[in-house]
Amino acid sequence: MSTERASARTSDSVLGRFHGVIPAGGTGTRLWPLSRAAAPKFLHDLTGSGSTLIRATYDRLLPLTQGRIMVVTGVVHRRAVLAQLPEIEDTDLVLESEPKDSAAAIGLAAAILHRRDPGIIMGSFAADQVIAPAELFQDAVREAIHTAAEGYIVTIGIEPTHPSTGFGYIRAGDPLTVAGAPTARAVIEFVEKPSQAVADGYIDSGNYSWNAGMFVAPVELMLRHLAANEPELHAGLLEIAASWDTPQRVQVARRIWPTLPKIAIDYAVAEPAAAAGDVAMIPGGFSWDDVGDFAAIGRLNPAEENSELKVMGEGARVFSENASGIVVSDTKRVIALIGIDDVVIVDTPDALLVTTKEHAQEVKKAVERLRASGDTDVL
Amino acid sequence: MSTERASARTSDSVLGRFHGVIPAGGTGTRLWPLSRAAAPKFLHDLTGSGSTLIRATYDRLLPLTQGRIMVVTGVVHRRAVLAQLPEIEDTDLVLESEPKDSAAAIGLAAAILHRRDPGIIMGSFAADQVIAPAELFQDAVREAIHTAAEGYIVTIGIEPTHPSTGFGYIRAGDPLTVAGAPTARAVIEFVEKPSQAVADGYIDSGNYSWNAGMFVAPVELMLRHLAANEPELHAGLLEIAASWDTPQRVQVARRIWPTLPKIAIDYAVAEPAAAAGDVAMIPGGFSWDDVGDFAAIGRLNPAEENSELKVMGEGARVFSENASGIVVSDTKRVIALIGIDDVVIVDTPDALLVTTKEHAQEVKKAVERLRASGDTDVL
Repeated sequence: MSTERASARTSDSVLGRFHGVIPAGGTGTRLWPLSRAAAPKFLHDLTGSGSTLIRATYDRLLPLTQGRIMVVTGVVHRRAVLAQLPEIEDTDLVLESEPKDSAAAIGLAAAILHRRDPGIIMGSFAADQVIAPAELFQDAVREAIHTAAEGYIVTIGIEPTHPSTGFGYIRAGDPLTVAGAPTARAVIEFVEKPSQAVADGYIDSGNYSWNAGMFVAPVELMLRHLAANEPELHAGLLEIAASWDTPQRVQVARRIWPTLPKIAIDYAVAEPAAAAGDVAMIPGGFSWDDVGDFAAIGRLNPAEENSELKVMGEGARVFSENASGIVVSDTKRVIALIGIDDVVIVDTPDALLVTTKEHAQEVKKAVERLRASGDTDVL
Repeated sequence: MSTERASARTSDSVLGRFHGVIPAGGTGTRLWPLSRAAAPKFLHDLTGSGSTLIRATYDRLLPLTQGRIMVVTGVVHRRAVLAQLPEIEDTDLVLESEPKDSAAAIGLAAAILHRRDPGIIMGSFAADQVIAPAELFQDAVREAIHTAAEGYIVTIGIEPTHPSTGFGYIRAGDPLTVAGAPTARAVIEFVEKPSQAVADGYIDSGNYSWNAGMFVAPVELMLRHLAANEPELHAGLLEIAASWDTPQRVQVARRIWPTLPKIAIDYAVAEPAAAAGDVAMIPGGFSWDDVGDFAAIGRLNPAEENSELKVMGEGARVFSENASGIVVSDTKRVIALIGIDDVVIVDTPDALLVTTKEHAQEVKKAVERLRASGDTDVL
């Protein structure tokens, strides 16, 4: 047997250990009133592609997983997620009775998968990101799987298009030598959202990528770091996982889940693992957007020809005269715009938002005020 | 009998000849989508007073008429007008099967009233104007009635507050000597909407008033000028009036009304009468607004304290952050405004308008585009 054929078979068997995980949480407050508690961001088609964000995320992982994909979401979204992903197995749909932040969600997936097969390499990708082209994403994930197989928690770094102050960054170290992962690098540290001056410096140095929260890792290694940093959380997750494929699943989860600490996977695993030298990075050559606000929706949707107004929504009836900006129509109402620039209008049956692209980030504030005033029926 | 008492009795008997006429037509296109074919401007409370414009017009005439008020409106508005004016007699509600412009509407009222009593002095006041205080209006109308009794068609001139290019003007001549009408003046001519330079000159001269389309005149004199200028229209109106208080009313009106020419009262009566020296004017010392667009609605409605945002509509749920302008809410929806200035938002169940105060006059264009595109369900 030649070395080449052995290597090919090794590669196949490494990739065959991969299992996708899609945490589908968060209400996308800055996309209110389109995105809201009952219909969060990931359940919408925000790019005019014809697919919801969660469906597109699932489809992007399919060629890597042959359907081995677990979704972790709120129990209130069960029906909507099944409508989007009818092929998902019951045992691959993990329902949270209440939100417990990303360490619990991703940690539970790791614990359940670890009981099924301790050799699994998981890859966690949020349900509400926009990525293109899918092939470049899949190439990066394949490199990440090969790197993970060498004992790393591997993140995929997004090449920054501008010195954003809205994202965390990944500081890359030296290149690694990993078969099947020619672009792999060590990670020195994760850093939080920087000031503008600091972000400018990051871009100039060439060693920083955006942190999109993508993690590919052996489940055993994820759990080991979780045990070291959050032993209580780790113990609770193992107990739930032990009952997962038994009739006690619901009863055990109902007892333990509410007691678990809320913490982000960044603090519970990624940052301490980086400090321990256990994190690697694959640079992602694809374009990426977290669709953080309505300005992003404007960027991601093509305008009609000869129009500076982008209109989203099936059956939208928009009439404009000297208007530019974005209209998201979730009703059948006629919308007339006259002489208004860079406007953002989101029209839903029970709530209307009117703002500007410039103020798109402040939508969160409006939602907070609505909550404070008790008008939670539209949140 | 002293001269003083005789004069008082004469005055009473002149005022006793007065009959109000309220033409209630026009859809108020520039106030779309609040005002529309099925619910025109005069059926709305546009000032936050608690009264619709037609109800306020009626109430303003009550002290002058003791209920002798005729309303001319479209047959489609019959029910809505009766809901606003439940006390109106069937014989004082003149229903047009289709709009035929102001000469037919006011002329028919004149012809019907003339058959009842040729001595009637009619006063025609549009249903969709905002006037305050009512007492100054009533003082002006009383002077107008006394002047009309001397054989004049009397208009009430609005003292201009600025050199508007959006109104027609009345050019006043010499003072007249009329008992009971110390401010009466002759009218030299009516002039159409002027250019800005011309309007500036009008204001400087002090001899020009805004033409609000108010006419007080003996019905006999109105009909005489109508006969001279529009004989066909005059003949048709007399024929309808002859059948008005008979069982043939509906049948005759249905046959003749559609054949009548469409012409404004200005061309059919006022301008030729002025040229003949038959028009007089009483200066109106009251404030007046024809609520021509949403900017006017902004002026006429008080803002809440510490807010530059004016909100109209019962049960409006508006949340704003650094926003100014006008919101008219005709729904129960939550409306959130963030970082947008001088905006005009009109939210109705089937149509939404977003524009700016500056572009409020262009709403008409949007309505025309909707009509052209066949989207007439929301007009």
